[in-house]
Amino acid sequence: MKIEDSDKLILITNDDGLYAAGLKVLASVMEEFGKVVIISATESRSGMSQALTVKEPLRVKLLEETESRRIYACSGTPTDGVKLAHNQLLERKPDILVSGINHGSNASVSVLYSGTMAAAIEGCLYGITSVGFSLNSFSPTADFSVCADYIRKVMKILDGSPLPQGICLNVNIPAIPVDQIKGMRLCRQAMGNWQEEFEKRKDPMGRTYYWLTGYFQNSEPEATDTDEWALENGYVSVVPISADMTAYNYIDKLKSKL
Amino acid sequence: MKIEDSDKLILITNDDGLYAAGLKVLASVMEEFGKVVIISATESRSGMSQALTVKEPLRVKLLEETESRRIYACSGTPTDGVKLAHNQLLERKPDILVSGINHGSNASVSVLYSGTMAAAIEGCLYGITSVGFSLNSFSPTADFSVCADYIRKVMKILDGSPLPQGICLNVNIPAIPVDQIKGMRLCRQAMGNWQEEFEKRKDPMGRTYYWLTGYFQNSEPEATDTDEWALENGYVSVVPISADMTAYNYIDKLKSKL
Repeated sequence: MKIEDSDKLILITNDDGLYAAGLKVLASVMEEFGKVVIISATESRSGMSQALTVKEPLRVKLLEETESRRIYACSGTPTDGVKLAHNQLLERKPDILVSGINHGSNASVSVLYSGTMAAAIEGCLYGITSVGFSLNSFSPTADFSVCADYIRKVMKILDGSPLPQGICLNVNIPAIPVDQIKGMRLCRQAMGNWQEEFEKRKDPMGRTYYWLTGYFQNSEPEATDTDEWALENGYVSVVPISADMTAYNYIDKLKSKL
Repeated sequence: MKIEDSDKLILITNDDGLYAAGLKVLASVMEEFGKVVIISATESRSGMSQALTVKEPLRVKLLEETESRRIYACSGTPTDGVKLAHNQLLERKPDILVSGINHGSNASVSVLYSGTMAAAIEGCLYGITSVGFSLNSFSPTADFSVCADYIRKVMKILDGSPLPQGICLNVNIPAIPVDQIKGMRLCRQAMGNWQEEFEKRKDPMGRTYYWLTGYFQNSEPEATDTDEWALENGYVSVVPISADMTAYNYIDKLKSKL
């Protein structure tokens, strides 16, 4: 694949791995917009957040190359993959980075744990317009094709309006028939947390181990301006996410104490 | 160790592992304030961000118990450790969570990659007053004792003024003699990014691999209200960090486009 200056160069990644159904849908939509470079792990890297691989070296393999597409397998985390692509593999800075389509919602505090969203945050730190897409379904037979039209809509909004450095988009799509989706809704991240219910088991040697399970609890179910509300009410939620985590609204309160 | 209602219960963790020098200093200072429960991995988990262990079970071992202290080794990430302690191991919710002292700065965007800060963010999601401490030195002989007085000062500020749910503190301490530290400074997170310089090597079989290296680049070196400026100028930086990553300052700009 030859990358010309006039090409729109699109970097694609995810945390569900190269063989995930969501990645296939995302890549096929993005090929309508430009030349695509896909980088991901062969296995899933869910819940990896913005983790970096610092104790082991990284391996990369070019799996496929056509005139419009290149696919790399990368041994590391989604964030490692973005760094490697941006710094070592690509001839130039990508025009856009898209991550997903994640198998499961990344609304509310899930943005903090998500490898898919971490890849988008990583992209925006380098000034690449970056978007993470997620489908609100953990079903093994989830239909990712409902996302296609909304991915196109987001691309049209961003066309000619790149995002500023340090800001990316978190787009969550409800898993309902496409004609029942009510449209896109600009939201803020709902406050909430995961209520963990570890499963405590014994291994065959009699030793205890734990599996992380749990359910999400929305701390503000009445608020109608959150991503959780939008998803529950049939809207595609769009939240601008900031890599600047400063709690500006709390600085004044701390001032009097320091 | 018996935990009474009247005890101040302190949960301590880090991402440099149970045998790290920074954890020893932090734990010995915190024992002045209450009963401490330490949970961490036996090896370092640097750069793990807020990663969760979802594909493997977790193991926990009680290593030591005295009248005022309990130490657990946990097989997972710093965030796993906080979840396990809070949900399975502790008799009640801790009054405070402290993480660190990290071996190396967690100022600016390092907060996004840091396992130490992720543990503090995890704590604040559950409404536990949480603070991450870091020393701005990667030297193997770094002197963590310079942090002790500032840890005490932060504890005194928080005494009777718990932090609200979803907000924790990121405290970075310059690695200079304690009498040269000019005091604490309330800051915002500096914008910047890591300029990666992967080291590309060949293994004995002739196959390429990469080591992640690089250096931090401050995008706003002139700004005097950032954590980077504070550290460089001999101050302890204190940044309130929000688990709500919504880019509120960009919502209005997006409104006209959606």
